[in-house]
Amino acid sequence: MDQLAMKKIAAQAALQYVKPDTIVGVGSGSTVNCFIEALGSIKDQIKGAVAASKASEELLKKQGIEVFTTNDVSQLDIYVDGADEINSQKMMIKGGGAALTREKIVAALAKKFICIVDTSKQVDVLGSTFALPIEVIPMARSQVARKLVALGGSPEYREGVITDNGNVILDIYNFEIMQPIEMEKELNNIAGVVTNGIFAQRCADIVIIGTPDGAKIIE
Amino acid sequence: MDQLAMKKIAAQAALQYVKPDTIVGVGSGSTVNCFIEALGSIKDQIKGAVAASKASEELLKKQGIEVFTTNDVSQLDIYVDGADEINSQKMMIKGGGAALTREKIVAALAKKFICIVDTSKQVDVLGSTFALPIEVIPMARSQVARKLVALGGSPEYREGVITDNGNVILDIYNFEIMQPIEMEKELNNIAGVVTNGIFAQRCADIVIIGTPDGAKIIE
Repeated sequence: MDQLAMKKIAAQAALQYVKPDTIVGVGSGSTVNCFIEALGSIKDQIKGAVAASKASEELLKKQGIEVFTTNDVSQLDIYVDGADEINSQKMMIKGGGAALTREKIVAALAKKFICIVDTSKQVDVLGSTFALPIEVIPMARSQVARKLVALGGSPEYREGVITDNGNVILDIYNFEIMQPIEMEKELNNIAGVVTNGIFAQRCADIVIIGTPDGAKIIE
Repeated sequence: MDQLAMKKIAAQAALQYVKPDTIVGVGSGSTVNCFIEALGSIKDQIKGAVAASKASEELLKKQGIEVFTTNDVSQLDIYVDGADEINSQKMMIKGGGAALTREKIVAALAKKFICIVDTSKQVDVLGSTFALPIEVIPMARSQVARKLVALGGSPEYREGVITDNGNVILDIYNFEIMQPIEMEKELNNIAGVVTNGIFAQRCADIVIIGTPDGAKIIE
């Protein structure tokens, strides 16, 4: 079974967590695109959505789903998003699509974070297969990169990418993260770092893995 | 003696820490404006400056001082900046002029942080006279404000202010900070917070206080 088919299985299974008449938090990325399509099929049962990226916002509108801003709502029942890596403690690396800051902001609004992935995203140690994205104020790019080297990583500037917030991305290669919560906090305290792609302090509550045998749900 | 005269005394005294042929880190605000003027008098002895705000950049250029970017330099010998409040441990609140993020970035590059203030800025407890500024991604404004209320503060949106990075400022009133390092870290870990105005992890090394009796230097 191809990856897209597994993503669709996970996305479809996430619909069971959508409560009627609520505003749904929606992340971004290819698995979330499948979820947005699935959400379109029950659009008359929900109030609308809050999107974590401009791309998701466009897709939601295309499905005829009303899009609210984060400043319109005080809490979301659920937030549905993919991940670039997820470990057995439901901690994640995100930010492959450069939307990590908005994703963290929308995730922070939700009572439940539902992570939808295919089997390729499961890892034992975060950072073992995917470079960790860091959103950085452009003027701090060089000095943050030096600090990341001092922490043991190999940062690379993501060429040509400007985030929705006008910042740049450094991807840290060769950076296995043994203590995700501590590292998330440490990276947040470097001057010039806006957000880092470790989602450990606020990890997922429910993981839905699309597999060839159907959706595997870990609550 | 008026406040401006005391600011000028502090600014003038800071010149003794400027080493020949170096690039000087320069903060922002009214006391720093006095320093930039003083720096103009020895401009032929320095290589140039790195500025923490667009306003300071303009003033430096007006003085005929070459302005470098943070990405041009790997380290600064000194960073000279004012503060809105400073305690006896040389920890500060900054951000009254909304330049806190760039100030923290430039300060992080410097071997020595030289804080120049008049006597009115000295406090026993940070937050006792000045509201703590927080730079926030615009879409997270409401939810960050709710978190700050939960921490015991009274956040107010600074109307009409957009930072050099395109973000907004929340000022936290009624927020005495008993443990500056811990609070600085905690605020940095709220999703949507770009920078907070507590300068405690990287506090000042030398404090120069302009007084009616001359410059008082605390090393």
